[in-house]
Amino acid sequence: MNNLNSLNFSGGPGALPESVLLQAQQAILAVPEVGLSVLGISHRSDWFAAVVAETENNIRTLLGLGSRYHVLLLQGGATQQFAMVPMTLLRGKQSPAQYLHTGYWSGKALPEAQLQGPVEVIWHGGACDFKRLPDDDELSFSATAPYLHYVSNETVEGLQFKRLLGRDDVPRVCDMSSDFLSQPCAAERFLLIYAHAQKNIGPSGVTVVLLHEDVLNLVPADLPCFLDYRKQALAHSNLNTPPVFAIYVTLLVTRWLLQDIGGLRNMADINQQKAALLYQTLDSSEGFYQGRAAHQDRSLMNVVFNLGNLELEKKFLAQAQRAGFSGLAGHRAIGGIRASIYNALKLSAVESLASFMQEFQQQARNC
Amino acid sequence: MNNLNSLNFSGGPGALPESVLLQAQQAILAVPEVGLSVLGISHRSDWFAAVVAETENNIRTLLGLGSRYHVLLLQGGATQQFAMVPMTLLRGKQSPAQYLHTGYWSGKALPEAQLQGPVEVIWHGGACDFKRLPDDDELSFSATAPYLHYVSNETVEGLQFKRLLGRDDVPRVCDMSSDFLSQPCAAERFLLIYAHAQKNIGPSGVTVVLLHEDVLNLVPADLPCFLDYRKQALAHSNLNTPPVFAIYVTLLVTRWLLQDIGGLRNMADINQQKAALLYQTLDSSEGFYQGRAAHQDRSLMNVVFNLGNLELEKKFLAQAQRAGFSGLAGHRAIGGIRASIYNALKLSAVESLASFMQEFQQQARNC
Repeated sequence: MNNLNSLNFSGGPGALPESVLLQAQQAILAVPEVGLSVLGISHRSDWFAAVVAETENNIRTLLGLGSRYHVLLLQGGATQQFAMVPMTLLRGKQSPAQYLHTGYWSGKALPEAQLQGPVEVIWHGGACDFKRLPDDDELSFSATAPYLHYVSNETVEGLQFKRLLGRDDVPRVCDMSSDFLSQPCAAERFLLIYAHAQKNIGPSGVTVVLLHEDVLNLVPADLPCFLDYRKQALAHSNLNTPPVFAIYVTLLVTRWLLQDIGGLRNMADINQQKAALLYQTLDSSEGFYQGRAAHQDRSLMNVVFNLGNLELEKKFLAQAQRAGFSGLAGHRAIGGIRASIYNALKLSAVESLASFMQEFQQQARNC
Repeated sequence: MNNLNSLNFSGGPGALPESVLLQAQQAILAVPEVGLSVLGISHRSDWFAAVVAETENNIRTLLGLGSRYHVLLLQGGATQQFAMVPMTLLRGKQSPAQYLHTGYWSGKALPEAQLQGPVEVIWHGGACDFKRLPDDDELSFSATAPYLHYVSNETVEGLQFKRLLGRDDVPRVCDMSSDFLSQPCAAERFLLIYAHAQKNIGPSGVTVVLLHEDVLNLVPADLPCFLDYRKQALAHSNLNTPPVFAIYVTLLVTRWLLQDIGGLRNMADINQQKAALLYQTLDSSEGFYQGRAAHQDRSLMNVVFNLGNLELEKKFLAQAQRAGFSGLAGHRAIGGIRASIYNALKLSAVESLASFMQEFQQQARNC
């Protein structure tokens, strides 16, 4: 693989597996089973219907998802879901939906929900600078909320929930954009899960939505068709021209997860090893590298840390870039360093980064 | 070029130029100037900002578009624009917007507009089975309409307006999805033009919107952010993660239009030659091939015709496929045959098709 791709720690769009890139590359000139460029095949072709069906089916298999759920492949990213969810589930409601504000991305979901109906924010993580997530005893889950919304992994701050939140008698809605298919998840305990593809499962331009069939009966009649989960589900994600290439690449990634990795349990093992190695590097640095997130809430996807001063961080990033690493600058909202270690990033790449970090620390001490 | 791609007459997503496919293929492993896969480069990178800026600039140059217009690159296809336009320009209005119903696609725009406000349909093309477009003296343009909406080219029926519609004192909104950048157009005589990419200018997954700056002041305050033209314009199409790959390929196509073709006047010449050859083949077939559209409204992009009976059409399609042609089946809504001859389809491919049609006719007569 191109060495630079293998050391791409970008926060997203993230690196994709080498075998997927090679197949995608071939498909640009000719999809093997069709003979045409993937960019010029009709979305109404039998081939594309099979692509959508297999992608849906692979996601079902990976998650053990039953037939009462629809798998949709939409456009517009998580941002579109920030609006579609409350348009569908919150409009006209008296009782507020409950939202957790745990970081940058859950914060983006709030104003979009507030446009549609009443919202109660039951955790204001800003008070602790989004350095930790709440315990259950800090949260008061209402029995009358139309739904509970949270973000499973905050990419900017590097926080990840290690447990299911909420009550079984209130529908759960979760933005899993940055840890979807990185580990097994109890998908059927949610009413709705959404995840844009560009972290773990594909390129930007496509968003996966898992939808309990009950949602189809809750859609208001006056929504534009493309914002209507029911119409999208009935059209099998082909209501209007879908992003064919992005969906095809997502199919290739789900095949890779099933066939090369062997499922989400294996994927989770690999992801845990990768994260453990980096956090260990932070913890054994005697404060040279300062992890941002509280230990119990550390993300397996985004390892966020600082080096004490901006000058040193700048030097770290420049030297890392010269060594072939990319994407390590922290999110523009908070700065610092962020190593995003999504599915496609190999343990060997993390080992290289850990070595680099140790050497950089040694070197800095010797100056 | 892969011979099958060069004979792809698909109605959309359509074929792309060979040189674009080769560059896209290379970018899947490594964008030359970055060294990373285009699928794993951050949308906040300097490289991607330059991609967006150059794409915008190329479109401005091709159309001679002034600085009072914004060029947006959005998701959701024309279908999203069917809703965004009336959400922005029609909500709360008393006077109806005027719409022309000239075929399948303009028909799709109607219910989306009617959800948002009053609509007057000033042309019901269904009465003549969408076989022709209206003359000016059949249309009554209101001076008080918030805007006039029409579709410049109907891909399904093969109808294309050869003139500008409407009054200069009422804003024009046009869906140019299927003939955008296929010929010069008086873009500044419109308030808003939209076009999904997957006919002439790129893969599916990205939509170009040209927007007069006045629109920015008309956006209601309560729209979800991704449906807000103002927020999208201020964010330079990077409000949330855009479809990086689709935009990159669109950039490559605009470069091809500027550098290889030499601008829209040249592109129009080529497109006129292609269409003339096919329509001539229909007209000289003594009724064997029956063109669908009235002569004066014939589309330069989609040549739609019948062969008199379904059995013969089936035979035509099967034999064409064996000869390497693809995408010739008419739209599922009306059947028949459709040869879509978008920008990237070469004159030589059209010559091959015309020869095939003549031979098929000869053969059928000899049976």
